[in-house]
Amino acid sequence: MIETLRKYVPILDWGRRYNRDALQNDLMAAVIVTIMLIPQSLAYAMLAGLPPEAGLYASILPIILYAIFGTSRALAVGPVAVVSLMTAAAVGQVAEVGTMGYAVAALTLAVMSGAILLAMGILKLGFLANFLSHPVIAGFITASGILIAASQLKHILGVSASGHTLPEIVGSLIAHLGEINPITLVIGIVSTGFLFWVRKGLKPLLIAKGLRPKLAEIAQKAGPVAAVVVTTLAVWLFGLWGHGVSIVGAVPQSLPPLTMPSANFDLLTALFVPALLISVIGFVESISVAQTLAAKKRQRIDPNQELIGLGAANLGAGFTGGYPVTGGFARSVVNYDAGAETPAAGAFTAVGLAIAALALTPLIYFLPTATLAATIIVAVLSLVDFSILKTSWGYSKADFAAVAATILLTLGFGVETGVSAGVILSILLHLYKTSKPHVAEVGLVPGTQHFRNIHRHAVETDPAVLTIRIDESLYFPNARFLEDYVLDRVGKDGPIRHVVLMCSAVNVIDFSALEALEALNHRLKDMGVSLHLSEVKGPVTDRLKKTHFLDELSGRVFLSQYDAWIALSAAQEKAE
Amino acid sequence: MIETLRKYVPILDWGRRYNRDALQNDLMAAVIVTIMLIPQSLAYAMLAGLPPEAGLYASILPIILYAIFGTSRALAVGPVAVVSLMTAAAVGQVAEVGTMGYAVAALTLAVMSGAILLAMGILKLGFLANFLSHPVIAGFITASGILIAASQLKHILGVSASGHTLPEIVGSLIAHLGEINPITLVIGIVSTGFLFWVRKGLKPLLIAKGLRPKLAEIAQKAGPVAAVVVTTLAVWLFGLWGHGVSIVGAVPQSLPPLTMPSANFDLLTALFVPALLISVIGFVESISVAQTLAAKKRQRIDPNQELIGLGAANLGAGFTGGYPVTGGFARSVVNYDAGAETPAAGAFTAVGLAIAALALTPLIYFLPTATLAATIIVAVLSLVDFSILKTSWGYSKADFAAVAATILLTLGFGVETGVSAGVILSILLHLYKTSKPHVAEVGLVPGTQHFRNIHRHAVETDPAVLTIRIDESLYFPNARFLEDYVLDRVGKDGPIRHVVLMCSAVNVIDFSALEALEALNHRLKDMGVSLHLSEVKGPVTDRLKKTHFLDELSGRVFLSQYDAWIALSAAQEKAE
Repeated sequence: MIETLRKYVPILDWGRRYNRDALQNDLMAAVIVTIMLIPQSLAYAMLAGLPPEAGLYASILPIILYAIFGTSRALAVGPVAVVSLMTAAAVGQVAEVGTMGYAVAALTLAVMSGAILLAMGILKLGFLANFLSHPVIAGFITASGILIAASQLKHILGVSASGHTLPEIVGSLIAHLGEINPITLVIGIVSTGFLFWVRKGLKPLLIAKGLRPKLAEIAQKAGPVAAVVVTTLAVWLFGLWGHGVSIVGAVPQSLPPLTMPSANFDLLTALFVPALLISVIGFVESISVAQTLAAKKRQRIDPNQELIGLGAANLGAGFTGGYPVTGGFARSVVNYDAGAETPAAGAFTAVGLAIAALALTPLIYFLPTATLAATIIVAVLSLVDFSILKTSWGYSKADFAAVAATILLTLGFGVETGVSAGVILSILLHLYKTSKPHVAEVGLVPGTQHFRNIHRHAVETDPAVLTIRIDESLYFPNARFLEDYVLDRVGKDGPIRHVVLMCSAVNVIDFSALEALEALNHRLKDMGVSLHLSEVKGPVTDRLKKTHFLDELSGRVFLSQYDAWIALSAAQEKAE
Repeated sequence: MIETLRKYVPILDWGRRYNRDALQNDLMAAVIVTIMLIPQSLAYAMLAGLPPEAGLYASILPIILYAIFGTSRALAVGPVAVVSLMTAAAVGQVAEVGTMGYAVAALTLAVMSGAILLAMGILKLGFLANFLSHPVIAGFITASGILIAASQLKHILGVSASGHTLPEIVGSLIAHLGEINPITLVIGIVSTGFLFWVRKGLKPLLIAKGLRPKLAEIAQKAGPVAAVVVTTLAVWLFGLWGHGVSIVGAVPQSLPPLTMPSANFDLLTALFVPALLISVIGFVESISVAQTLAAKKRQRIDPNQELIGLGAANLGAGFTGGYPVTGGFARSVVNYDAGAETPAAGAFTAVGLAIAALALTPLIYFLPTATLAATIIVAVLSLVDFSILKTSWGYSKADFAAVAATILLTLGFGVETGVSAGVILSILLHLYKTSKPHVAEVGLVPGTQHFRNIHRHAVETDPAVLTIRIDESLYFPNARFLEDYVLDRVGKDGPIRHVVLMCSAVNVIDFSALEALEALNHRLKDMGVSLHLSEVKGPVTDRLKKTHFLDELSGRVFLSQYDAWIALSAAQEKAE
């Protein structure tokens, strides 16, 4: 009973072993992550088309709920770039940015996503995430990075533009190029340049100047905060908001409010597919990070419990003014590197962010949106990685096709189309491959009991015995293929009296393949040829025994291919 | 050059060897098939919602074109029950029965289906038909038979009713029960009873009376003609059409007219999916019949050339007042049994039907539609076969689920939904199965070099060596599964120092699985455990050699599992 409870509420497990050392480490990690998260949360909320406080709210209760229900020690849950982009795409289809309906739709999306994740966790459907293949995920993340960066250019230029696909965004930017605000452009370019430099050059410089690496690392993470502070001060001191520089403006000074998602049936229907995609993509991103970090300490992640943790976090986001969240790569790595030992580090981060939401929001009134856009652009460009195109091309053309299609369709038709098409294409390519399996005609390697491809090795064969090794499970997409292959082969070659199917790589024979084998058996019998099987696996044999196939088989079932060879080529010699 | 031409125009091959014997046999077969086809063609046109002559037209040019381009010697092409039902469902969505638009949509559907079949043939996409698994086809045919029989009940009862799903049809019949025409009902019931008796009882009776079996067979095939003649005479003699008995009425006395399908873009878009489904279903029905008959004479069918033959036939149907056609089971078997030797038999049948269209149509003016409905009902009920439910249940629950879902969805939501859902479900069930592959932990069978499941056999193991045999190709749906399985297993068992993956049943390692193996290698290395592979197939090794995986592998690649055992358990002993 207690054990079951501990399994579903992991805090009960690590909580009772919590001590002073862990507390110190967790507190230290929380301070670093809080500093990093404040500008990031504001920026991702803007990317999602929501007011900046939504980003803070989405980082408070979700973190605490994940700390209670999640299994990863270091995962940091909150708004992330790709999910924010997907939220903007989904909610943009049902409501106008800036309206009350938009915010409610985002809450609803978070609750639906939470419910889907919880349901998947309870029904143990975590394996569904596997249908997102590595090439599809890699292509999707790269394309999303480009889309996100492109969508933020309007803030750097100070123009109004819109769109959820690359052609739309670029077209809209070009149409509004005349409206560029020079002061905004300067803030945007300087911030972007500064942040790139902080990311690449600051840490080595500080270390060279004698700073301890740990402190240099913290200084680097604080870079976005510095950009926020400096540009906010500049806008305030020089009154730049009067010159058309877009600023964040009034942000409520409050703890996360209690909010209600919508129960409108049409809205729920419209958001279902996006919520499903956000859940699965978010889960895949989160579990990859969690497993990478857990493996370093020989800890284990329970994928189904992770679904429950992420589901609870999203439900929390939906009821406290947030939007869909997941475990983020960057913040989790920072949390881990900063020494977080338990999910309590996350809870302390939540407290830090709550203080920020209560006390610091008036300070960001003059924060220019160009600075937030710069932090997003610098963060997401690290996601863009075209090397997957090259590596997949070298390994397998089918995988390359999946990557390329996912990238092109995501850029050209948006995130939902891109990722759906990638998944469907991967499945179709797999089915296509298995529908034309590798089939080898084999013969005996002299002096051994091994059988090898007659086209690759010098082997003994018997003109009356055709032995075929099928390198694939037999199921409906290839059932007819084998039938055609064997009949064609036998039709061309008069002296064949025995056909042996060597089944060492046949893991399944489904009902369609069984019927094809029955038809093959009858047609070969009509031609005066016997059909034999060899090396059939236990589970496959068990299933065949339930049918009449083995009774009707014109030939025999041999335990090994060598047994078949001895019996059939010997019988042949005797007959001669 | 000549050879290529002969391949694509098979008539050039068999035509030059044609002789008097073949001519006699083909002529005899043609007479029998023509007698059978006249009422059948009229009836199926009615089922498709088209005027009766459309059925005759659809049987003339298509037969000739198939004779030129098809590869089967005995296949008889024309309207068939299931395709007629699918035509009614597809065209019914875009036009009203009885309008000009309905007939044009049917022509358009035939041309689109012809174009799709031709394209599939030229692009060698015949394998696509394999994705219709046996269980799905069997379920679909059974459900279609029920739907067709139900849709014809209105003609037997003499009421007006409509619908493309079983609930719609039954509901509509019940709503119109008050309109039953008693004379029509008598004609319908007597015709149906007579035809059932002809089918089951006539032939044995005639043989018992001393008739030669061949003639008894012909008498049986002529049963529907007798029903047509008798009921038509009855309607004419007793003036029954004046008592509300629905009759065929005026049918133009003409050879097939030259007709033009529509090029309306919206219509083409609306009909594309139905045309694709009709093409694939028609192809599957046709090729199954053709292969069954060809195998009896040790002839071969070329599936891609069959697509071209059926494509030409459908184009012909679309331009000569017909509707989608395919190779029918019943008529092909009759053709074969009647001794047809070459496709010329089909051409002679076409001549017979052309004479019927020119000369006999005035004679069917008084033919009651109830008689045609009776011929359809008797024909299709032989398609209904629920035994597939029982056999698939005994063999595999996944196949049973595909059958049951296809039957229920076809009956409940119509033919297109039913067959599409069946295909999608089959694919998903397959992916689900392969996403959780059978994995066996194996050990050495004492005194041999064989390795078997430790849970099924008494085998030798070494606490430091974990050997896992994966009974499935490694690809994206199961990539993470293996990683989880191994890490979980190693995490639970302290002394493990070596993990060996035995790959004898691994036919493919895709890019996702490669990345999972790389991650597994690194994570095991972090835990101080080496990863080894054994019995990797040639094509898989070739591909792995293109990557860095084998260089980075912490362990070795062994040719056989026995080699791995010797090396690793020996190293272990030495270390001890």
